[in-house]
Amino acid sequence: MRTQVAIVGAGPAGLLLSHLLHLQGIESVVLESRSKEEIESTIRAGVLEQGTMDILANSGVGERMKKEGALHHGFELAFNGARHRIDLHELTGKAITVYAQHEVIKDLVAAREAAGGQILFGVRNVALHDTQTDTPSVTFEHHGEGARIDADFIAGCDGFHGVARPAMPQEGRNDYDRVYPFGWFGILVEAPPSAPELIYARHERGFALVSTRSPTVQRMYFQCDPKDKAENWSDDRIWAEMHARTEGSDGWRLTEGKIFQKNVVGMRSFVSTPMQAGRLFLAGDAAHIVPPTGAKGMNLAVSDVNFLAQGIEQFYKQGASERLERYTEDALKRVWRAEYFSWWMTSMLHTFADASPFQREVQRAELENVVASRALATALAENYVGAF
Amino acid sequence: MRTQVAIVGAGPAGLLLSHLLHLQGIESVVLESRSKEEIESTIRAGVLEQGTMDILANSGVGERMKKEGALHHGFELAFNGARHRIDLHELTGKAITVYAQHEVIKDLVAAREAAGGQILFGVRNVALHDTQTDTPSVTFEHHGEGARIDADFIAGCDGFHGVARPAMPQEGRNDYDRVYPFGWFGILVEAPPSAPELIYARHERGFALVSTRSPTVQRMYFQCDPKDKAENWSDDRIWAEMHARTEGSDGWRLTEGKIFQKNVVGMRSFVSTPMQAGRLFLAGDAAHIVPPTGAKGMNLAVSDVNFLAQGIEQFYKQGASERLERYTEDALKRVWRAEYFSWWMTSMLHTFADASPFQREVQRAELENVVASRALATALAENYVGAF
Repeated sequence: MRTQVAIVGAGPAGLLLSHLLHLQGIESVVLESRSKEEIESTIRAGVLEQGTMDILANSGVGERMKKEGALHHGFELAFNGARHRIDLHELTGKAITVYAQHEVIKDLVAAREAAGGQILFGVRNVALHDTQTDTPSVTFEHHGEGARIDADFIAGCDGFHGVARPAMPQEGRNDYDRVYPFGWFGILVEAPPSAPELIYARHERGFALVSTRSPTVQRMYFQCDPKDKAENWSDDRIWAEMHARTEGSDGWRLTEGKIFQKNVVGMRSFVSTPMQAGRLFLAGDAAHIVPPTGAKGMNLAVSDVNFLAQGIEQFYKQGASERLERYTEDALKRVWRAEYFSWWMTSMLHTFADASPFQREVQRAELENVVASRALATALAENYVGAF
Repeated sequence: MRTQVAIVGAGPAGLLLSHLLHLQGIESVVLESRSKEEIESTIRAGVLEQGTMDILANSGVGERMKKEGALHHGFELAFNGARHRIDLHELTGKAITVYAQHEVIKDLVAAREAAGGQILFGVRNVALHDTQTDTPSVTFEHHGEGARIDADFIAGCDGFHGVARPAMPQEGRNDYDRVYPFGWFGILVEAPPSAPELIYARHERGFALVSTRSPTVQRMYFQCDPKDKAENWSDDRIWAEMHARTEGSDGWRLTEGKIFQKNVVGMRSFVSTPMQAGRLFLAGDAAHIVPPTGAKGMNLAVSDVNFLAQGIEQFYKQGASERLERYTEDALKRVWRAEYFSWWMTSMLHTFADASPFQREVQRAELENVVASRALATALAENYVGAF
């Protein structure tokens, strides 16, 4: 089989890249180890920046997002028993949309399928070859048979644990890594939203986040030991913890519901550079990870492939590779901004077991500065909405 | 001897408190272990916030400050080979004055002496007694003779290593401490200013600060091992380090001159609470230390004694102790804001030997956010000028 761009991974990065290339008349094939059902039902991130919404809408896959997504003009910071609203729209003129990642994936899969795009699900043993030549290829198994795709470019959109990053030449690579000493215990709940906007809570017992996925499904998290197990937590124990960390003295109460999923996720910051070597390009989680505190993961994936699609378009339409050569530089500017912001939010809102009393008080003073200073609140809001 | 307020320490806190009380007709005696010559010649801090200038000017000791101090409307952040101006005045409407702490001390000593105020220099063996009763007293030796002052209040303005803080009741005390793994190597130089404004430089070799004390004396610092010794550094080695850390590609060069003082200072953040117990009040460095990066030390001392003087005035004039009882709370609000800011500036601008490559890149990304975002630059500027 031959295509112009072989895309490894059918997450938001891989699917959107395939879609954007198609709009420019560029062929691609997407390889995915999971099934279509699995990628369309795994509940993950859910906050879209204005720029992400624009890219999705402008490329014709924003219909359902606009209809079903919830536009949020602010969020709340809860600490010391009180809640403080960060008015994103008033501070930056922009907003965010809460629309689950797997819904974005459904929309992109539908668009690719409607256009006759090729997504091969359930592939096995994907391997990349000759990535540093002009004739790279990908081999894999599909329905138990060996297969091969020859392409002009390979896009590694297969996540942190994928095969693309390890296939990059190791010489000259720099990895930047921070593993946080805590995880997030996540629950999915059948309930109406507890509040109209997201609540980020800093409490002595640890961070908690009250988020939403739909009018009937809520997503909540609380900071936990990264080695903790979902089965260690009864529903009662979970609710006691969520109530304790999020409720203050203003009478607001968290709405409980049936918990239908529990999981523990680790927290890490990670950047691997360069994001391009020869004809192999990394995008999204394959190249970088942010802790979910800043809600930047999916937005960075979209930003990466937007740059990459423009570079590939320039290559085919103008015969120039200037934008492709600038891909690492262009993408990393946004990546490091998001890494900084995600680290900031994470550092400011979580408890650190090894923090000194001084460090805890400084953390509190920083939060008080955020809610007292319009300037600092604006700096936070700009980063949250992805203002630049 | 009897007075209304016994003040231990003739730094900016003690002298200004004595002066402010005098303006309200309240008597005090200041005890100082050093000589008048020593306190008037020891070169220390030199950045006055607008609020500090206002307090000094409004109390009649701002004449020389206004004439000889240098009003600075901005400062520069230097990193990655480029310099970026933080326009304090444009961002906040306020400015700072560079006027050396020992000049403030000269002005205050002169004002106290002109008014017949008592400052006892060279006292020894100061001890505080009965601080938790309404009849506290201070004993000490002066000119080799034992002496005693009975007072209504004792103000401990005798710095981090003074006797006042250890004399506080230990029950219920909370100390917050952070000792940084580096120090500042400071030099005093006979030279004209190298630049019209202060330059805060972040370099891979470590932080450096190009500051000024007068048109002919410059103050420069560079981050060093806190255990390093001044005698380990030849002038040539010092200049090589200062040039390397502060100069970029824009052609600007540091102006050298005769180095006439070298010293190494440790860097620490420290807060001791409460700041009041019974009739004993702590102010300035006796209660809290900031690393010099944020230039907040003298400003906090002035802010503390401004609150304290108002409280003592209310006590004598209205027979009420409400403001005195609120002293810790009022003072600490500003203290923690300054501690947060000083920690932020310190963390953002110094190299940390144990920082991971990720942490170093996040530090760079934060600085880039500061110079790219008017909001974040404003947040920094607000804190620098002491806007609230």
